[in-house]
Amino acid sequence: MKKVGLAMLGLGTIGSGVFKVLKENGDIIRAREGMDIEIKKILVRDKNKKRNVDVDKSILTDDPSEIINDEGIDIIAEFMGGENPAFTLIRDALRKGKSVVTANKEVIAKYWDELEEEAEKSGAGLYFEASVAGGIPIIKPLRRSLQANNIVKIMGIINGTTNYILTRMSEEGKSFEEALLEAQRLGYAEPDPTADIEGYDARYKLSILSTLCFRNRVTIDKIHCEGITRISPDDIRYAKELGYGIKLLAIAKKHDGKIEARVHPTFIPLSHPLTAVRDSYNAIFIQGDMVGDLMFYGRGAGDLPTASAIVSDIITAAQNGGTHHSVRLDEDKTVFEDNWKNEYYMRLVVLDKPGVLAEIAGIFGRHNVSLDSVMQKLRGNDNATIIFITHTACEKWIHDALDEIRRSPSVISVESMIRVER
Amino acid sequence: MKKVGLAMLGLGTIGSGVFKVLKENGDIIRAREGMDIEIKKILVRDKNKKRNVDVDKSILTDDPSEIINDEGIDIIAEFMGGENPAFTLIRDALRKGKSVVTANKEVIAKYWDELEEEAEKSGAGLYFEASVAGGIPIIKPLRRSLQANNIVKIMGIINGTTNYILTRMSEEGKSFEEALLEAQRLGYAEPDPTADIEGYDARYKLSILSTLCFRNRVTIDKIHCEGITRISPDDIRYAKELGYGIKLLAIAKKHDGKIEARVHPTFIPLSHPLTAVRDSYNAIFIQGDMVGDLMFYGRGAGDLPTASAIVSDIITAAQNGGTHHSVRLDEDKTVFEDNWKNEYYMRLVVLDKPGVLAEIAGIFGRHNVSLDSVMQKLRGNDNATIIFITHTACEKWIHDALDEIRRSPSVISVESMIRVER
Repeated sequence: MKKVGLAMLGLGTIGSGVFKVLKENGDIIRAREGMDIEIKKILVRDKNKKRNVDVDKSILTDDPSEIINDEGIDIIAEFMGGENPAFTLIRDALRKGKSVVTANKEVIAKYWDELEEEAEKSGAGLYFEASVAGGIPIIKPLRRSLQANNIVKIMGIINGTTNYILTRMSEEGKSFEEALLEAQRLGYAEPDPTADIEGYDARYKLSILSTLCFRNRVTIDKIHCEGITRISPDDIRYAKELGYGIKLLAIAKKHDGKIEARVHPTFIPLSHPLTAVRDSYNAIFIQGDMVGDLMFYGRGAGDLPTASAIVSDIITAAQNGGTHHSVRLDEDKTVFEDNWKNEYYMRLVVLDKPGVLAEIAGIFGRHNVSLDSVMQKLRGNDNATIIFITHTACEKWIHDALDEIRRSPSVISVESMIRVER
Repeated sequence: MKKVGLAMLGLGTIGSGVFKVLKENGDIIRAREGMDIEIKKILVRDKNKKRNVDVDKSILTDDPSEIINDEGIDIIAEFMGGENPAFTLIRDALRKGKSVVTANKEVIAKYWDELEEEAEKSGAGLYFEASVAGGIPIIKPLRRSLQANNIVKIMGIINGTTNYILTRMSEEGKSFEEALLEAQRLGYAEPDPTADIEGYDARYKLSILSTLCFRNRVTIDKIHCEGITRISPDDIRYAKELGYGIKLLAIAKKHDGKIEARVHPTFIPLSHPLTAVRDSYNAIFIQGDMVGDLMFYGRGAGDLPTASAIVSDIITAAQNGGTHHSVRLDEDKTVFEDNWKNEYYMRLVVLDKPGVLAEIAGIFGRHNVSLDSVMQKLRGNDNATIIFITHTACEKWIHDALDEIRRSPSVISVESMIRVER
């Protein structure tokens, strides 16, 4: 039986998950894959800390060089998270010809080119299935099952925290703040939830996904990013009335040689399969020119789902040995589009007097924005709420129209502008 | 650039799809995968038939031996369908050391062991991603992304025809016959729809999926099979009232060393992601002990989606060269379970007189079946309809109870018995 020497960088939640998977399903892996994966060393900060897993203390080390220089170690699996020292360790491991398996979205999103280059030079493999959408197989299917396609569109629910919050708001009428508190209490949200609720986490993942799908380097600075902090129960209620759900979507499209990429709250029709993705589940919806619509659904986080992806990568790395299969980027010079087209939902509070609706409709018209539907709601205190859904329009037209609308004395506030996808 | 010599067996719908994909996306495949796939020969029945694709007539042949014996052909892709001559040709190709890519569910379900053995002997590869769920990547993810898991459950909507029919019945209140006629008119159902509507097509696919998931040979004779011909609009209406959808599911479970496998109409809660799979879409829901719930959704048929899977397999076959990765079956002797457990929905028409409900409830009780809910409906003509949902019970208890219920003079008919999954 093939022997595989593994080192782990980190023994937190995910590291412990990997430890458990290798222990509990080691028999299956030996029988079906014909390999025996042995954990030879584990990098930890504190060797004496009490652990949840029953690990032999003699394999713990706090010195990375003991791992990088160990000839008996073939594969290094990293789940320390954060940019550094993770990046340096991954790079050094690749330089030493050790294949690397990582769950680190930030490092892959930021240092893709450099790490691919190192891997190509040494022939070591670089694997990062677990960096996007936890346990859901997505990186490998994109690379190994959809090669015959020109991928034209990605829409992903790739942050479980925000999906949990939006589900609670939608199903129980909770406010954003209440739902966030609940998510924190249950461990779905961090004490500092910024990276999740502002969309930064989803942006790293979209950078990786869209680079892979379009074979063009989509760095995070090319991705427009809005979080869910301003979504109100009113918007969620109106969405339902109009036949939509609200999800934080990571969207990327490629058309006419242009790429657009963005993370923002989005209206999607209740009949769309993404709307049925509830709680902390993730799902990635992909459109290929040949295969049509596909969706991959599952657990986007958690120790064991993430470990499932990591151990799969470890097995693949061992099977591929010293052969690195680089992701070949296309050579064409792609333009990034920020004036994308969408339908738009907007909610305005205006003075309840004759002529206001006509005035606003006139402003939209002057900016080329044509309206699909208008709903007037909740009169009271001389105010009225007006809800618009537009036909397809350019992002800039909408912003220009809203600027002018905000200046009108009849308009009290523009409460929300949310893009609509189908 | 690597040159790959391909022969195609068949130039019908799927063959033409493969031809189109290789033509339209050949550039992408050359640039990203570094290989040039050349169609060297195509086996057809009639060389002079008019074709929808612009194919060079000189590569058409009606003599399979010209293909099997051609040294310039590395890979043979088969999409003739049916058992023979497809099986013989696949076997002979493998014997000659040519890798085979096939969309043929029947041949794989029936001759898995024999073909795997031939492949192992010659070192040629055997690939069949397109045999299950068309364009959805499922075979490769199961083999290459979920190796760290013990898969415990599969629930698949793997027949697009029946899903289309059930969707029309559910959304438009059509009868089975009306929905079938519409499906036939639109080309979603064959003129002879038996294989689809009786569940035989789904059974072949479940045989392949469950063999792969459980690493135990699940032949079609081990799979209980019921079609959708007896589903009535009444059942669909009551399902909705009770919070369920009705789908034709292919279900396989492994627990306590036992495997159960079955294809039948099934109640599933409206909140389950499988319920959102509409029209002719397919989806496969999988539960792994580590990864938890996963779902793969997409087009289960059609020329281009199926061709997407076939061309992906061709690329993989070329990359793997003469290395065949066999599916290693487990050695344990698994028992097949036909007395599985479920909740059950039943609809009875009974005489509308006092004591009938008590009598029926008594019969269920004597057979260990406890009831979760009872609904009495539609009185008229001295008849009443009673709907039961049971708690978890054994299949045999239900059959025994229904046998006794049918014999009661108070019971006019047992209209339906549909299993419930969650």
